[in-house]
Amino acid sequence: MRRAFYIGRFQPYHNGHHAVLTEIAKAADEIVIGVGSAQLSHELQNPFTAGERVLMITRSLRGLGVPVYVIPIEDLRRNSLWAAHVRSMTPPFQIVHSANPLVTRLFAEAGMAVHSDAMYERDRHSGTEIRRRMLEGEAWEPLVPTPVVEVLNEIDGVGRLRQIARSD
Amino acid sequence: MRRAFYIGRFQPYHNGHHAVLTEIAKAADEIVIGVGSAQLSHELQNPFTAGERVLMITRSLRGLGVPVYVIPIEDLRRNSLWAAHVRSMTPPFQIVHSANPLVTRLFAEAGMAVHSDAMYERDRHSGTEIRRRMLEGEAWEPLVPTPVVEVLNEIDGVGRLRQIARSD
Amino acid sequence: MRRAFYIGRFQPYHNGHHAVLTEIAKAADEIVIGVGSAQLSHELQNPFTAGERVLMITRSLRGLGVPVYVIPIEDLRRNSLWAAHVRSMTPPFQIVHSANPLVTRLFAEAGMAVHSDAMYERDRHSGTEIRRRMLEGEAWEPLVPTPVVEVLNEIDGVGRLRQIARSD
Amino acid sequence: MRRAFYIGRFQPYHNGHHAVLTEIAKAADEIVIGVGSAQLSHELQNPFTAGERVLMITRSLRGLGVPVYVIPIEDLRRNSLWAAHVRSMTPPFQIVHSANPLVTRLFAEAGMAVHSDAMYERDRHSGTEIRRRMLEGEAWEPLVPTPVVEVLNEIDGVGRLRQIARSD
Amino acid sequence: MRRAFYIGRFQPYHNGHHAVLTEIAKAADEIVIGVGSAQLSHELQNPFTAGERVLMITRSLRGLGVPVYVIPIEDLRRNSLWAAHVRSMTPPFQIVHSANPLVTRLFAEAGMAVHSDAMYERDRHSGTEIRRRMLEGEAWEPLVPTPVVEVLNEIDGVGRLRQIARSD
Amino acid sequence: MRRAFYIGRFQPYHNGHHAVLTEIAKAADEIVIGVGSAQLSHELQNPFTAGERVLMITRSLRGLGVPVYVIPIEDLRRNSLWAAHVRSMTPPFQIVHSANPLVTRLFAEAGMAVHSDAMYERDRHSGTEIRRRMLEGEAWEPLVPTPVVEVLNEIDGVGRLRQIARSD
Repeated sequence: MRRAFYIGRFQPYHNGHHAVLTEIAKAADEIVIGVGSAQLSHELQNPFTAGERVLMITRSLRGLGVPVYVIPIEDLRRNSLWAAHVRSMTPPFQIVHSANPLVTRLFAEAGMAVHSDAMYERDRHSGTEIRRRMLEGEAWEPLVPTPVVEVLNEIDGVGRLRQIARSD
Repeated sequence: MRRAFYIGRFQPYHNGHHAVLTEIAKAADEIVIGVGSAQLSHELQNPFTAGERVLMITRSLRGLGVPVYVIPIEDLRRNSLWAAHVRSMTPPFQIVHSANPLVTRLFAEAGMAVHSDAMYERDRHSGTEIRRRMLEGEAWEPLVPTPVVEVLNEIDGVGRLRQIARSD
Repeated sequence: MRRAFYIGRFQPYHNGHHAVLTEIAKAADEIVIGVGSAQLSHELQNPFTAGERVLMITRSLRGLGVPVYVIPIEDLRRNSLWAAHVRSMTPPFQIVHSANPLVTRLFAEAGMAVHSDAMYERDRHSGTEIRRRMLEGEAWEPLVPTPVVEVLNEIDGVGRLRQIARSD
Repeated sequence: MRRAFYIGRFQPYHNGHHAVLTEIAKAADEIVIGVGSAQLSHELQNPFTAGERVLMITRSLRGLGVPVYVIPIEDLRRNSLWAAHVRSMTPPFQIVHSANPLVTRLFAEAGMAVHSDAMYERDRHSGTEIRRRMLEGEAWEPLVPTPVVEVLNEIDGVGRLRQIARSD
Repeated sequence: MRRAFYIGRFQPYHNGHHAVLTEIAKAADEIVIGVGSAQLSHELQNPFTAGERVLMITRSLRGLGVPVYVIPIEDLRRNSLWAAHVRSMTPPFQIVHSANPLVTRLFAEAGMAVHSDAMYERDRHSGTEIRRRMLEGEAWEPLVPTPVVEVLNEIDGVGRLRQIARSD
Repeated sequence: MRRAFYIGRFQPYHNGHHAVLTEIAKAADEIVIGVGSAQLSHELQNPFTAGERVLMITRSLRGLGVPVYVIPIEDLRRNSLWAAHVRSMTPPFQIVHSANPLVTRLFAEAGMAVHSDAMYERDRHSGTEIRRRMLEGEAWEPLVPTPVVEVLNEIDGVGRLRQIARSD
C-alpha cells in the first residue's frame, strides 16, 4: 500500500490541481488530500468553506481510479508543529507531493519523503486568477472541472465573492 | 440528492456504529460522517488519532453502497457555535441522525431536521467496553468490523492504550 | 464616580445575586457586572448563553437606581491573566465585591481593592439548587426574580436543560 | 418587542455611529450594540480597549430614549461561525442594521433579516480620519460626541495612540 | 555534546525531582528542563506560575555542575503534537529521561530515544503530598530543597494555596 | 536582588542585542530575557524556533558575569494582557529595559518601572538586515556573536531561510 499526500487551499479546486492529482494517481494506491486553511471562508482570498471545497474535490475526482481521502486541515499558525498536525488528521502516508517550498521544508524536517516536481507548479496562481475573473465578470469556468462549476452555482459562490469584495 | 449526517468519536469504530450507518444508508443518497474530538488522541478515552479513525471508518464502509464523506471535526468547546462549525467543515446535508440528546438539541436549535431513533442507541457504551477489554486482555475483536482489527494491529493500537493507561 | 465590580456565572440569575447587587448599589455610583464563562452554554452546569444571561440580569435590575454595565467575560483558562482580562473588557472600576476566594485573590494580586463580605455568600449554591429543581420538576420560580422566569419561558430554558441532561 | 442589532469596532465611537444609531432608535424598542474586535487594543488601528469603548458608547447614548445593550464581541477568525457567535453573546434580536457587505452576507446566510441602507455608510472612514488627526495634532473633537472626548481625556487616549505610533 | 531532556509540572519542585536530575547530570553535558502546564497557576493542583517554578528550579540547581535550560512549556491539549511542540521551544536534545508512560510513548512515537528508569518514579506523588501538607499546616519543608522554601516564602505560596482552597 | 527584564524576537540574536545586554548587566544582579513570538518559526521574518533562539542567546552570554534566565514568550495577540502574560512566565523583575514604544507603554500601564534609553535603539533593524544578507549571499556573520554563527551552521539556518523565501 503506497499512500501519497497532497495539500492545497483549493479556493477553488481547478484544472491545475486536477492535472497534478491525475499525475500523482499513476504511482499511488491511494491519495490523501489536505484542504488547508479549513477554518477560513467568506474572505477575498478564501471565499469557500472547507465543506464546500471537500465537495468540489470529491466530485471532480470520481473517475480518478484510486481512492481519495479528502481531509480539512485547520491552520495552527505554528510552523514547527504543522507536519505533526497534518499527520494526526490523516491516514498514514509515505510520500508528500508538493512544489511549495515551505510545505517541502516542513515535511523534510519532520523526516518525511518529499517529491517536488516542477510540474506541480501548475497548482499555483490559478486560484488568484479565477477569483479575479469571478469578480470582474469574465469567464472562469474553463479553468475548473465541470463539477466545480456545479457546486459553485449551487452555493452562489460567485455572488458571495462579489458581495464580500465590497467590504474593503 | 439527500445527504445524511452522523457523528461520533469512533474510539474505535465498532459494530454499533456500523449497524446504525447501514440503516441510514437505506434512505440516503450520500452520508457525511463527522469524526468528533478530532484533535484528541493518546488518552484513555480517546486513544486514536483522527486520521486513524478516518481509516477505520472508510475501510469498514467500502461495501456500503452509498458514497461517504469522513470528516474530522475538532472541538470548539462552545456549544452555541457547534452546529455552525460542523456545517462549515462538511458538504451540505439535509438531515441529522442521532440519539445523542445534546447533538439533537444543538442541530434542532440551529433549524436542522433531526431524526432520533432508539435504534441509534446502539452506538453507545460499546466504545468504553472495547477499551476496557483491550486493557484487560479480553476479546474485543468480535465487537468491531474486521478492517478495524487490521488498522489497530498496524498502528499497535492496543499497545498504545495499555502504555497510556499506566500514566494514571 | 465610584464604580463597583461584581462577577458570576448567573446560571441562572437568582435572588441571591439580586440581594448582593441591591446591597452593592447602596454605596456605588455605577455597577459593572461580569457574566463569567460567557462562551459556555447548553451544558448541565452552564445551560444558558451569555446573551440570555445578559437579558435576565438587565431586566431584573431595571429598578435598581444606579446604572449597570452587563459584560460577557469569556474564560481564558489562565488565572494569572484573568484580572487583566476582566479589566480590558469593562469600564474602569475602583472596587471588587466578591466572596469567592479565587476572585478575591486574583484581583488582590493585581493590586485592586477588594471587599469581601460574608453576606456575598448568598450568591453560592442557589444556581445548583435551581438547576436541580428544574430537572426534577420542582418549583424553582420562587428562587429567582420574576423577569428571569419570563426570559426562561421565552427561550424554553427548562426544556433545554432537561434535554441536555439525558446526554450523560 | 422589536430588538435591533448594530456592530462596529468603535475606535473611537463617533458622530457617524451616533447618527446611524439615532436613526435605528426610531423604529426599535431596544438596540443591541456589538463592540467588535473586543480583544484588540493598543494598536494603531485599534487603540482602545473594549471596556473603554463600552464606556464611550453608553455615555453618548444616555439620551437616546430606547434601552441599549453594549456587548463586547471577541474575534473568532472563522467567518462561518461569526453570526452564531454574535447571537450567543447577545440578547435575541430580530433585525440587523449594517452597510458592511461582509456583516450583511454572514447574517443573511444565517437566515437573519438584514436592513442595509446607504445612510449607514456614514459609519465608515471617520475612525481612520479621527486617529489620523489625533496623531498629527489636528482637531478631532468635532467628529465625536462630547462624552467621548471626556472618556479619551480620562484614559490619556491620544497619548497612548501617539506612543504606540512610534513603534513602527 | 549530549543534551538530556526532563519534564515535570514542578508544583512545587521537590527532592524527588532533585534526585532524578542529580542522577541525569552524571551522564549529560547539558540538561533541558521543561516546565509543563506553564499557563496554569492559582489552582489547587497548579498553584504556582511558570516564572515562580523557573526560579525554584534554577536556584536549586546552582551547584549541579552542568548547565541547565529551564523552559516553560504551555499545554496544547493535542497529544499528537506535543513532542513537536516541546522540541520547538527547547534547544536540541538527544535523549528523554522519564518514567511517565504518556511522555515516554509520545516521544518514542516521534522517534526520540527515551530512557525510562524505575528510579525516576521518585518524582511522582510528592507534589500532591506537599500541597496537602501546606493546606493542613504540616511540615512540608523537609520535602523540598532549601531554595524552594525561600521562593515560596517570598511569594506567599502557602497563603495563596490556602486561599484558593476555600473556593471549592 | 535587582532583576532586569529585556525582550526581543532575536531572529537572530545579534551584536545590537549583545551591546544592550552588556550595558544592562552593569546595573543588574540578574537578567530575565524574553524570547518573543516564541510560537513562530519557518517564516521569512521569523525563521528560527524559540529553542534555537534560546540556544543562540545562552551561548553568547556565557561570559556576561550575571545570571540570565532565557524564557520563550508565546504571543497572545491581546495587548491588554501582555504585561501580565510576560510576568506569569518569568521570575519576578523590578525594571524593564526597552526602547520599543509599545513594550514601554504596556509595562508602564501595568505599573512597572521602565528604563528607555536611546542606546537601546541599537537592537532595531539589524535583524532585518541580517536576514536580507543571508538571502542575498552577503556577509552576515560580522553582525552577530560567534556562537550565533555556530548555532546557525548546526541547524542549517541559512538554508532554511532561503528555502522558505521561495514560497512567496
